[in-house]
Amino acid sequence: MTSTREFTAPLIPSPQPPIMPLLVVGSVAIDNVTTPRETRENLLGGSATHFAYAASFFTSVRLVGVVGADWPQEHTNLLGSRGIDTSGLQTIANGKTFTWTGKYHDNMNDRDTLDVQLNVFGEFNPELPEAYRRAKYVFLANGVPAVQMNVLSQVPGRRLAVADTMDLWINTARDDLEELMLKLDGLVINDSEAKLLTGTENLALAGHIVREMGPRFVIIKKGEHGAMFFSEHETYVLPAFPTEKVIDPTGAGDSFAGGMMGYLAEQDNFEPETLKTAMAYGILVASFNVEGFGLERMQQVAREDIDDRMEAYRKMLSF
Amino acid sequence: MTSTREFTAPLIPSPQPPIMPLLVVGSVAIDNVTTPRETRENLLGGSATHFAYAASFFTSVRLVGVVGADWPQEHTNLLGSRGIDTSGLQTIANGKTFTWTGKYHDNMNDRDTLDVQLNVFGEFNPELPEAYRRAKYVFLANGVPAVQMNVLSQVPGRRLAVADTMDLWINTARDDLEELMLKLDGLVINDSEAKLLTGTENLALAGHIVREMGPRFVIIKKGEHGAMFFSEHETYVLPAFPTEKVIDPTGAGDSFAGGMMGYLAEQDNFEPETLKTAMAYGILVASFNVEGFGLERMQQVAREDIDDRMEAYRKMLSF
Repeated sequence: MTSTREFTAPLIPSPQPPIMPLLVVGSVAIDNVTTPRETRENLLGGSATHFAYAASFFTSVRLVGVVGADWPQEHTNLLGSRGIDTSGLQTIANGKTFTWTGKYHDNMNDRDTLDVQLNVFGEFNPELPEAYRRAKYVFLANGVPAVQMNVLSQVPGRRLAVADTMDLWINTARDDLEELMLKLDGLVINDSEAKLLTGTENLALAGHIVREMGPRFVIIKKGEHGAMFFSEHETYVLPAFPTEKVIDPTGAGDSFAGGMMGYLAEQDNFEPETLKTAMAYGILVASFNVEGFGLERMQQVAREDIDDRMEAYRKMLSF
Repeated sequence: MTSTREFTAPLIPSPQPPIMPLLVVGSVAIDNVTTPRETRENLLGGSATHFAYAASFFTSVRLVGVVGADWPQEHTNLLGSRGIDTSGLQTIANGKTFTWTGKYHDNMNDRDTLDVQLNVFGEFNPELPEAYRRAKYVFLANGVPAVQMNVLSQVPGRRLAVADTMDLWINTARDDLEELMLKLDGLVINDSEAKLLTGTENLALAGHIVREMGPRFVIIKKGEHGAMFFSEHETYVLPAFPTEKVIDPTGAGDSFAGGMMGYLAEQDNFEPETLKTAMAYGILVASFNVEGFGLERMQQVAREDIDDRMEAYRKMLSF
C-alpha cells in the first residue's frame, strides 16, 4: 500500500529548473571576407547569428532578424541544428540579404570595409512574436539605436537587457543611443568605441564614464587583448586566450557577447562571480570563433571543448 | 651539563637563506618628459635605475652604469635609500649624463623622442668590479648588444641572465643580438619589437619564434594590455592591473623587469609557478611606476602595498 506522501512524490525526477530563453535581435548577413591568406565568399555572417551560435552552447536561443530571397536554406538549417529557434527570422521574398565585404590587414585586427549592402536589413524594425515578448534575457546586437529601443520596449518583463553598438551610431545617433543606455542593464562596446564615446584614452576611466551614462555594467572588448568589466564597485580585466591560429576575426565580438549572455541565461543570475565567469566564457567562445572562417570552426566545437579550454584558462590565470 | 649536540646547536635562529644578489647593467639617465597634462624636467631616468628601484623591493641590487659631472647626488642618494649598491655607478668628471627628452601622445602609449644626448653612455662598456662578477642573477638592460655580450662574459657563474633590447638594435645590430640571444636564459621585449624581430603580427606565434632563436623563455610586454610568457611547454598571458591614473609611462617596462627579476632572485628558483608569480609582480610594480613621473610614485610604495595589490590582482583573476 502506498502512502499519500509517496503518491504525491512521483518516481520520475523533478524537472530541472527551466532554462531561461535568450532573445537576440540583430543582423543576419552574408559575409565576403579577405584575409592576408585567403578570400572566402557567401559565409554565414551577421551579429545576431554569431551571437546566437555562441549562446546556443549554454541555453535555448531565439533569433529575430531578416533575410532576402537569396538566403541559403542551409544557413538556417545550421542554426536549427544548434537548437536555435529561427521562427523569428523573417524572409522578404523580393529582397536581398544584408551583405558585408571586408578585408583584414596583416595584423588581423584592423580591417577595411570594401562594400556594405544593407538591403532588407535597412528597413529592419521588428514586431516580436508574442512568445518572444516574454524573454527574460535580451541581447540587442549592433543596430540603429531607435530600432534597438523599439525592440526593448516590447520585452517589458525582461530580467537582463544588454546591447552592443558601433562608432557609426555614436557619431550619427548619439541622442537615441544615450536614451537607450538609460534603459540597459549592460552595454558591450569595443575599445575604440569607448574612447570615441567618452573622449578619454584611458580605458579604465572610460568604462566608468560609460557606466555613469546609464548601464549597470559596461564591458569593453579589446580584441586580442581580452576584455574589461565595469560595475559600480568593480573594475576588472581578463586577457584573451592566446591562440596562434587566427583565421578570421569576423564575429569575435558577437561570439563573445553570445558566450557571456548564454552563460548568464543558463545560470539565471548575475551575481558578480557569475558575471566574471560569463565574461571568461565569452572570451573562450570568441577564441574558437576566430580559428576559422565564419562559423566553420564553431561547428567543430562542443560544450566540452569550451569547458576544457576554460580549465586551461583558469590554470593560466592562477599562480 | 650540556651535550655536544646542544653545544653545536646554538640558541640563535639559523640564518635565513642568503638573498641572491641581482646585478643590473644599463642606462642611467636624466629624463625630460612631456605628457598631455604636464612637462617635468631633470627626472631620475634610465633603464637600469627603473629596474633597480623596482627590484629593490624584493632583493639586494647592484647597479652598474655611468653618469657625468652634472648628475645630481640626490639621485644617487635616492637609490642608496633603497639599499641599492651604487658602487658600480661610475662618474666621468668631464662628461655629461645621458639625457632623454620625450613627449607622450594623448593615448599615453605612443611617444615621440624629441631629443637624445647619449653623452657618457655612448662610450659605456663596463669592466665589472670583482665582487659583481659573482652575481647569480643578471639583467642586461637595453643597450648595444655587443656591450651586453661583453658584460655577460664577465659573469660566468650566473644562474639566470635576462636581457632587454629595442628596435634600434634589431635594425642595426641584428647579428650581435642573435649571438647574444643564444647565451640568454630570458629575453624581455615589447610587442612591436617582437613583431619586428619575427616578421609576424600574431604575438602568440612571435613569442615562440623568438624563443627558438635562443632564450629559454621570452616575455612580450604589451604595455596597458599586460604581458605574455613563452617557454618550451608554456604560453600564457596576464593582463595589466587596471589603473585610471596613468601619469608617466616612462620606465614601465624596466620596472616590470625589475619586479620580475627581483622576485626570482628573492625566491632563488625559476620553476614555472615562480616564473608566473614573478611576471605578475613585474606587472604590479609597473602599475605603480606609471602612477607618477619618474620614480616619484615608487617612492611612496612599500612591499606591503605591492602585496596588497597582488591580493587584489589574484582576486581579479579568479572566478
